[in-house]
Amino acid sequence: MDQLPHCETLLLEIEGPTLHITINRPDVRNAMSLQMVAELSAVFAQIETDISIRAAVIRGAGGHFCAGGDIKDMAGARGQETGDGEADPFYRLNRAFGQMIQQVNESSKVVIAITEGAVMGGGFGLACVSDVAIAGPTAKFGMPETSLGVIPAQIAPFVVERIGLTQARRLALLGLRIDAKEACTLGIVHQVATSDEQIDDLLGQALERVRHCAPKATAETKALLHRVGHESMSGLLDSAAEKFAAAIRSDEGAEGTMAFVQKRPPKWAGDVE
Amino acid sequence: MDQLPHCETLLLEIEGPTLHITINRPDVRNAMSLQMVAELSAVFAQIETDISIRAAVIRGAGGHFCAGGDIKDMAGARGQETGDGEADPFYRLNRAFGQMIQQVNESSKVVIAITEGAVMGGGFGLACVSDVAIAGPTAKFGMPETSLGVIPAQIAPFVVERIGLTQARRLALLGLRIDAKEACTLGIVHQVATSDEQIDDLLGQALERVRHCAPKATAETKALLHRVGHESMSGLLDSAAEKFAAAIRSDEGAEGTMAFVQKRPPKWAGDVE
Amino acid sequence: MDQLPHCETLLLEIEGPTLHITINRPDVRNAMSLQMVAELSAVFAQIETDISIRAAVIRGAGGHFCAGGDIKDMAGARGQETGDGEADPFYRLNRAFGQMIQQVNESSKVVIAITEGAVMGGGFGLACVSDVAIAGPTAKFGMPETSLGVIPAQIAPFVVERIGLTQARRLALLGLRIDAKEACTLGIVHQVATSDEQIDDLLGQALERVRHCAPKATAETKALLHRVGHESMSGLLDSAAEKFAAAIRSDEGAEGTMAFVQKRPPKWAGDVE
Repeated sequence: MDQLPHCETLLLEIEGPTLHITINRPDVRNAMSLQMVAELSAVFAQIETDISIRAAVIRGAGGHFCAGGDIKDMAGARGQETGDGEADPFYRLNRAFGQMIQQVNESSKVVIAITEGAVMGGGFGLACVSDVAIAGPTAKFGMPETSLGVIPAQIAPFVVERIGLTQARRLALLGLRIDAKEACTLGIVHQVATSDEQIDDLLGQALERVRHCAPKATAETKALLHRVGHESMSGLLDSAAEKFAAAIRSDEGAEGTMAFVQKRPPKWAGDVE
Repeated sequence: MDQLPHCETLLLEIEGPTLHITINRPDVRNAMSLQMVAELSAVFAQIETDISIRAAVIRGAGGHFCAGGDIKDMAGARGQETGDGEADPFYRLNRAFGQMIQQVNESSKVVIAITEGAVMGGGFGLACVSDVAIAGPTAKFGMPETSLGVIPAQIAPFVVERIGLTQARRLALLGLRIDAKEACTLGIVHQVATSDEQIDDLLGQALERVRHCAPKATAETKALLHRVGHESMSGLLDSAAEKFAAAIRSDEGAEGTMAFVQKRPPKWAGDVE
Repeated sequence: MDQLPHCETLLLEIEGPTLHITINRPDVRNAMSLQMVAELSAVFAQIETDISIRAAVIRGAGGHFCAGGDIKDMAGARGQETGDGEADPFYRLNRAFGQMIQQVNESSKVVIAITEGAVMGGGFGLACVSDVAIAGPTAKFGMPETSLGVIPAQIAPFVVERIGLTQARRLALLGLRIDAKEACTLGIVHQVATSDEQIDDLLGQALERVRHCAPKATAETKALLHRVGHESMSGLLDSAAEKFAAAIRSDEGAEGTMAFVQKRPPKWAGDVE
């Protein structure tokens, strides 16, 4: 693939069709800084059009996923003056985070989050936009914002999309902190591992499934899923039928159908095993 | 009731207020052919205005619900030429299936799906629009489309409506195959039977409940449920209050209220026992 | 706080920042009368702008939450004539209930429902708009309307918002009655207590969490949650970022941040302990 952006807050490693992104500020439990937001955004922009990458795995260094917004950035924003016609620095700080979350949510790649330790505030929001979320035994999830006198502005909307209003209102309004098992029951994560080995097993199984699914078809399917509820069902199904016809006439559709008839794995699965 | 349409792919049997629809292509695990789509559509159109039918039970012959789209239809579409001003044959094939699914979803009847064996692709989509879904112990659910290089175009939107984006994105993007228990946890089905006898018991209990509910009130309620989220809550509640007033002044409302006061079953329950 | 409205169907008690509302018509299992609807509406209007109240706890006297609409009001509506240009009395009766439910749903206070015994029809609807719902061991939930020949007009839409179409369609169309455990699995309630003591414990824990969360930030967060899905995500996040900037520059934001740095509880938590 093309050169990945240079990052100070992230470790990046490519393994076959997978980009491993490790949030790497363990001394502050991987608190989400403005720089980290910018780097995550740059990385996802870079891989968006790179067909060699099919999955992005996000995890945190040092046993924590991400403990939330960075206190120093907050202090910095408070000290900054707002120029003429400029938005409030707090607005810009907060909104930049939400924009990155939206970008990850709609990434054409399969996004897998490995959540351990603190998965709080902004970290919670980031976990909520993954396609597959696996929790380790130490994971704790929550939105502590209201206990600090502020609001989970860019996070709560994604939590509602993730688990529905019913559960989101209780979690957000009580500022609750929940463990991996409850997070799985509520649908924040899909699976809970009881050990580090099991995290690796579950991740390996997910990546194995990614390999068996055609890359372009997977990206088209993800885009389709994100449209549901935002337009009329009939119009959506019309558009989806067009995409179906295009998919089955594409290289992937031809290869997949032929592989099925010939009882062999399709090229996209074989290439990488 | 009026004569049911003649069907080659479905067995139809009327039992009191219930129409039993058996998908009957066991040699191809009840694969969904264009003809089957047309016949299901004709049957649901026929019963829509037939007040003698209150419930439609869909199941598959030979231990499978429906294994997905029919390979022969696919081959046929590939061979077909697209005439001037005509849609791609793949488009028409795919869209026809989605139209039938929408029709079943919004049927005024109580639709009960008995899911066993393969409940894949199109079969999965059909199960996802039932009002009550009961899984047998052998049921397996999944959207294998992306592993064949195509997309679950007419299915995935109904899966999102059924179980939400969070779970749908994992199932669709990994092309997972899940069992009855996980399908119940995710809300694809409502109940899991551990034996054939228990399938019959659960079905019997559901049909017994259908008998106790007034047919027109049930149809009005179902139509109301489908409107939630597609219009403003206030406008919906205004319209619902009008329907409430009409219902309580109707024959059913009068009979139901009187039966309650007289501590006897209403006519619609007694008629059929 | 200001004088609470005089109520005949409700007992009101203020305890610190909590208003306890007890539905008090135990002889009719707290059936929801027009008067009760009006009184609940007046109480929630009164507390909406009262900053001394942070939480409203709703429960029923005599072991039942609320058994549904009042039969006498129904009889009264049937006897009433509809004047020129007036709405059907059944319309007005039904719609007034829905308006109160919407008001409770969007109350700026944290609404906690303690559900015991009959939680049916209108009572079910009311439970479905709480931020935190705790069920006692005796609770039974259901929408029996269609078995009476009418429709759950003002209730079913909130049930769909609460638990999604998939589960709501089965409950409503079969007129099912379910227990506390199933209600918790479906998300109607958040927690199930196995004894009266445990109800008190769970309620105490929720109120303790309310105390730790800043009142205005909590109200802003609740308003934000209710907007999700009703407008574009980008626009919502823009607006939310503005509210974040305002919150962090507010008295609450200053106090919360300072308390965090000084490792002490914020004033809003200390005030009430």
